[in-house]
Amino acid sequence: MNFDIDKKEFLKGLGLIQSLAGRKTTLPILSHLLIQCANGLLYLTATDLETGMCEKLNADVHEEGKASVSAKKIYEIVRELQEETIHVQKRENQWITLRCGRSIFNVAGLDPDEFPSLPTYQEERFSKVSILLLREMIEKTVFAASNEESRYHLNGVFFVKNRKGEKESLRMVATDGHRLSLIDREGGMVGGIEKGVIIPKKGLLELRKAISEKTGEAEIELYFDQTHGFFRIGGSLMVIRLIDGEFPEYEQVIPKENDKRVVMEKEKIYGSLRRVSTMASERVEGVKLSLKTGGLEISAYHQDFGDAKEEVEVVYDGPPLDIGFNARYLIEALNAIGTEEVIMELKDEGSPGLIRPAALTEASDQCCIIMPMRI
Amino acid sequence: MNFDIDKKEFLKGLGLIQSLAGRKTTLPILSHLLIQCANGLLYLTATDLETGMCEKLNADVHEEGKASVSAKKIYEIVRELQEETIHVQKRENQWITLRCGRSIFNVAGLDPDEFPSLPTYQEERFSKVSILLLREMIEKTVFAASNEESRYHLNGVFFVKNRKGEKESLRMVATDGHRLSLIDREGGMVGGIEKGVIIPKKGLLELRKAISEKTGEAEIELYFDQTHGFFRIGGSLMVIRLIDGEFPEYEQVIPKENDKRVVMEKEKIYGSLRRVSTMASERVEGVKLSLKTGGLEISAYHQDFGDAKEEVEVVYDGPPLDIGFNARYLIEALNAIGTEEVIMELKDEGSPGLIRPAALTEASDQCCIIMPMRI
Repeated sequence: MNFDIDKKEFLKGLGLIQSLAGRKTTLPILSHLLIQCANGLLYLTATDLETGMCEKLNADVHEEGKASVSAKKIYEIVRELQEETIHVQKRENQWITLRCGRSIFNVAGLDPDEFPSLPTYQEERFSKVSILLLREMIEKTVFAASNEESRYHLNGVFFVKNRKGEKESLRMVATDGHRLSLIDREGGMVGGIEKGVIIPKKGLLELRKAISEKTGEAEIELYFDQTHGFFRIGGSLMVIRLIDGEFPEYEQVIPKENDKRVVMEKEKIYGSLRRVSTMASERVEGVKLSLKTGGLEISAYHQDFGDAKEEVEVVYDGPPLDIGFNARYLIEALNAIGTEEVIMELKDEGSPGLIRPAALTEASDQCCIIMPMRI
Repeated sequence: MNFDIDKKEFLKGLGLIQSLAGRKTTLPILSHLLIQCANGLLYLTATDLETGMCEKLNADVHEEGKASVSAKKIYEIVRELQEETIHVQKRENQWITLRCGRSIFNVAGLDPDEFPSLPTYQEERFSKVSILLLREMIEKTVFAASNEESRYHLNGVFFVKNRKGEKESLRMVATDGHRLSLIDREGGMVGGIEKGVIIPKKGLLELRKAISEKTGEAEIELYFDQTHGFFRIGGSLMVIRLIDGEFPEYEQVIPKENDKRVVMEKEKIYGSLRRVSTMASERVEGVKLSLKTGGLEISAYHQDFGDAKEEVEVVYDGPPLDIGFNARYLIEALNAIGTEEVIMELKDEGSPGLIRPAALTEASDQCCIIMPMRI
């Protein structure tokens, strides 16, 4: 293996994939990158066996071959190099030599044949989706996924084909058992999601990061098989191992009888919640919403620090109702809503509340559901 | 106590002093702020008994008095408030009530008479020093102070009056036993430093932070007594308890017989050190400097990751010399030097190296000394 590469190009590729290499791993090769020269191009691969990524870079390849070196170390080195051409050559003992300007680095390597290969994809199964659409759907759901390792089937986002009469849409749903976020969007068909797949949160966040750095691309190619999701975007391939579990029957959680309807200005209620929740206890983060005709009072009480309350103008003409919620869940749900007006639908103090954008078109649908709490 | 204050003004004051309130303290009142209304002004005070600060703010005082509330909590609350006037009033039970727009906060308080008072200063002892000068001197020394708690007399910067023939200058020195940084600057006399005082690093870093936020001020007033340093800058008073210990006899550490003189371009050697030190071991951070006529080779070796070397052009016409240093100490010393050319003076592989700016005027003097290491 022997190639020349521009420092910027190398650093861009390393920056994208080095965080995928396992840091705390018992298998040393997983903390490495695979560097491959083939067909006149350079490929960098990293994986922690859950999320893997292969990045194609432009290089001047003099001799094909492959090597495996520490992801962290090669990234540290290349980051400090001067803005020049970097010459990389493999040596007999699996090491590589890297020359740039007057610097020479000999970097320890492992046998590249031991590097785990990414699952192979089937070219014909890919279909295209707008990057903006995918990013929006990730951002509006992923926050609600669980971080509790013991609830591994909730540690991801459920991605499923949704049918509404004649119309088909993509649906993403996430829940941690205390709240749920759901979004439907029309936008092309994706293979392998008829029964739904659960994409782990960690992989989705890596995907979102990769998307945000590929600013030149408008579309992403993707499909799912039984075990993996495959995502391709401008020279990068990302492979995410799906969560092997049963996603809960989320549809029965969506409240149908919430007859108390509150129309609120998002910015106003958002600001009030942020202010009042400074006095919510750190552990339960609870705030009380007290509804009466035309008005909403938000209040919180902290055992050590005191209490807070604030009145917010809302449109409401139902009977008075007091209900408690986790303030952070409310704030995160509002964050996920793009419209200026927000609708909250409630039933009683013991039933889940539903938050949704005020302007619903037939083509789009979104809601967040939050379990109430005693306050 | 009863006052109105603009949100921005209150937040500015809280932002400056809230970090001084003790976080992990067994004495609850130290995690509080003292809020005082007197002479038509508002005073905020925070202290951890080592570093204390009192900040004067513009407010519309309706009734004098004082209160003590959690620094962290009041800062969190005011940060979230809308850009309006905040009304603050003390209640019977030591609590305060804070109103802003439609928000009402009742914040728990403690008896303000229990708040420790800052040491009192003597107005006539203050003298003025340029802020730029003080900041330069802090930045060029404080990095070399020790962080080891067991060496408490090295946990600060020694500030002393220096005499050179007829001329008097201010001198700051810091050392951690492995390296030392010294700077002399002419610039007005400061009271109480004839024998030198040791200002703790933590307090100096707080002072530097306060200085950098007081962008409108050109001068700082200061003096030292036996136990404290007093610093006054545009409405803020900072009081720092001095370290009660003997600063080492640093003058005998400064090498006088370093006859091997290397002239280097700072940016070049800085870049080389950053590159090569990526291959230094994390524990000892050692790099080897190999000098020969007209050239310097910097090299490093890492047990797991490999090795690195780089040639740098320097001006040198002495005999060959190999010497090891901690790369981070070299990098931090270069960072503290403002000139484009830097001079390194060495004796042999077992003696400390000296780094100084190449352009020395009579009025200014600076050096960094680094102990060598076996490599």
